Amino acid sequence: MRQSKLFTKTQKEAPKDEVSKNAQLLIRAGYIHKEMAGVYALLPLGVRVMNNIANVVRNEMNGVGGVEVSLTALQDKSVWEKTDRWRDEAIDIWFKSKLKNGTEVGLGFTHEEPFTEMIAEQVNSYRDLPILAYQIQTKFRNELRAKSGIMRGREFLMKDLYSFSRTQKEHEEIYAKIAEAYQRIFDTVGVGDKTYYTYASGGSFSKFSHEFQTLTESGEDTIYVHEEEKIAVNEEIINEPSVRNQFNLEDFIPQKAVEVGNIFSLGTKFSEPLNLTYTDESGNSQPVIMGSYGIGIGRLMGIVAELLSDDVGLIWPITIAPFKVHLVQLGDDDSVKSEAESLYQALVASGVTVLYDDRSLSAGEKFAESDLLGIPFRVVVSKKTLADAVCELKDRKTGSVSRIEKDALIKEMKKYA
Amino acid sequence: MRQSKLFTKTQKEAPKDEVSKNAQLLIRAGYIHKEMAGVYALLPLGVRVMNNIANVVRNEMNGVGGVEVSLTALQDKSVWEKTDRWRDEAIDIWFKSKLKNGTEVGLGFTHEEPFTEMIAEQVNSYRDLPILAYQIQTKFRNELRAKSGIMRGREFLMKDLYSFSRTQKEHEEIYAKIAEAYQRIFDTVGVGDKTYYTYASGGSFSKFSHEFQTLTESGEDTIYVHEEEKIAVNEEIINEPSVRNQFNLEDFIPQKAVEVGNIFSLGTKFSEPLNLTYTDESGNSQPVIMGSYGIGIGRLMGIVAELLSDDVGLIWPITIAPFKVHLVQLGDDDSVKSEAESLYQALVASGVTVLYDDRSLSAGEKFAESDLLGIPFRVVVSKKTLADAVCELKDRKTGSVSRIEKDALIKEMKKYA
Repeated sequence: MRQSKLFTKTQKEAPKDEVSKNAQLLIRAGYIHKEMAGVYALLPLGVRVMNNIANVVRNEMNGVGGVEVSLTALQDKSVWEKTDRWRDEAIDIWFKSKLKNGTEVGLGFTHEEPFTEMIAEQVNSYRDLPILAYQIQTKFRNELRAKSGIMRGREFLMKDLYSFSRTQKEHEEIYAKIAEAYQRIFDTVGVGDKTYYTYASGGSFSKFSHEFQTLTESGEDTIYVHEEEKIAVNEEIINEPSVRNQFNLEDFIPQKAVEVGNIFSLGTKFSEPLNLTYTDESGNSQPVIMGSYGIGIGRLMGIVAELLSDDVGLIWPITIAPFKVHLVQLGDDDSVKSEAESLYQALVASGVTVLYDDRSLSAGEKFAESDLLGIPFRVVVSKKTLADAVCELKDRKTGSVSRIEKDALIKEMKKYA
Repeated sequence: MRQSKLFTKTQKEAPKDEVSKNAQLLIRAGYIHKEMAGVYALLPLGVRVMNNIANVVRNEMNGVGGVEVSLTALQDKSVWEKTDRWRDEAIDIWFKSKLKNGTEVGLGFTHEEPFTEMIAEQVNSYRDLPILAYQIQTKFRNELRAKSGIMRGREFLMKDLYSFSRTQKEHEEIYAKIAEAYQRIFDTVGVGDKTYYTYASGGSFSKFSHEFQTLTESGEDTIYVHEEEKIAVNEEIINEPSVRNQFNLEDFIPQKAVEVGNIFSLGTKFSEPLNLTYTDESGNSQPVIMGSYGIGIGRLMGIVAELLSDDVGLIWPITIAPFKVHLVQLGDDDSVKSEAESLYQALVASGVTVLYDDRSLSAGEKFAESDLLGIPFRVVVSKKTLADAVCELKDRKTGSVSRIEKDALIKEMKKYA
């Protein structure tokens, strides 16, 4: 994409009313636009990163046998009354509205209930199970305060998968497989080394649930981390006897963290009230054993922005960067323009995504903006590089700068096509 | 994808409470699930078709220079008050809700206002224009009645593009370019021949707006069609002097139709109240000239389902079908299974999308279901075809059946990879 066609501008200062680090950076770099507190639109660069993260998650969910669906935001009150999650006293983050005839509707803050109802229409026999179905879809949560940027929004993109199993054993195998896929997701998007498989409250149907918590000073949670074993325990259960029995807590150190994923064993909590049963091999009706598995796509973008940035801007991992290469043309000399244009065409033809800075600005302005945008590789074409028949290649993460011939550069970048 | 992993079931009868033809068919075939009147979830096959249609639209919008963004559903009341489109007396299809502090919020039924505000932050100079920005995103409309299935839902996927131009001339060039792209979209998804460029009410800033209306008995609109010139006039303006002056109405015949797209010249209707201006070459501040361009992605899926189906089921055009090939294995004979499996692997390796019916059902059940699903090519592998070292290939649209060798089939299908 030509930067002259990218209508967003970068800003030297973040808006004064924005307190979160991720939103400050992402607004300054032109990735997001604040509509109101906790509600952010995605600008062109933001759309690209969000889609890339969604695709990393999608590939892993497909890999464990997940099938993609897309449920609706509008929610039928009667379904949620069956599980007693409609009342404001039970769930305090609903956005609710009304149809013209006065019927109340809600905006989905999660989707266990409609997923269970939808699957109940499709399942009769043990032969129909197990099912893993997921969506990547917008959730709405009426948060009292919204000060964490895109890490805790009132409207945000989330992947939620639900598993439907015949037996507890089958459920546990699926649960373990998804836990592994989650770890691969966090590795791929660049926060795996700081993300801990964390024991958390299990609710009424299992001893523990599990969170994936990423260490960060801006986190709202405190977890107790065992660095060697790469596990952690959420503070909320640190004093429970089951925890004290299972872990030697002397080796666990408290740290601030943010929850980037969670996986729950739901047992029959939803299948029983919503009548999701199957007929087993012996002809008996059995309730389906469920699990739910969430990852906030927007939150993941926020945590990557916070953790992988430096004083001068964002540093996207190559797996989710909006473009792999930021091609910067310096000066308006015809020979420079034509060389940059030809390199742009060659890279695009090789399948490499390129943001091509074809604008007339000073080197200082262009470099500062390039650092802020955080595209992994910066390639400079100038009169100087042209004279030496090379380009200049800078790695945004390490800061290392090298000179490289055009053909070698194309070959090198093609690895990331 | 293996059909044994596709958890949806087809149904012989449509639900009794569903009156629209598109929803009846799509529910029976397992593409959508009704959450409530006018609110439909997408099942796995439905997700695939919707994504394919969205990608056809996306490619055309990128082709005319559109840049993709994603605004939010939650809407700030204060923005809409500036254009007097917040009051229920002015707009009667808002879904509204409240933040915890009592502040009213709405759910976007369209996005002129927030788009204008967002662009106003980015534009200063004539050098920043023109801009074409679009999103493919969920809209919410509190329709009094919702009886048209996914052709008029309360929650639906829409592509809306907004253009921001310096001059009326520049605006008109963009407008014409997008009108051409729209016609290509309707051609690509298979309804181009029945879709008419239709003159409609222009509002306060232009003589006409333009709709793309597709002829169908289930349409809510009446248009007057000039078949030879492939244009039409909406009934709403048929008696206006400007219409009677411009067209010889004797040649126009009334027909029922549904609006699948619309394009509006907005002039400065939004840029003035929302203060979207630019500095021209002479240093003077000028209001930006706007246009808006909508296509209902879900509505398009609905109209294709209605128009391109027959008595036994759906007939997807190959451009938007959930899979190109429906590979049907007949019988559980080991040699048949292994041949079907090998053909499945070979097609997938060639980049062809395949739904592989690997289930143990009768030929009659499998064929009936295949017709209902409407995948363009049905390929049968059975003991009989195996004995003759061929496969059976059926074209869902024409009904023609032929026998073809495996290698020739793969070569033929690879055209649609």
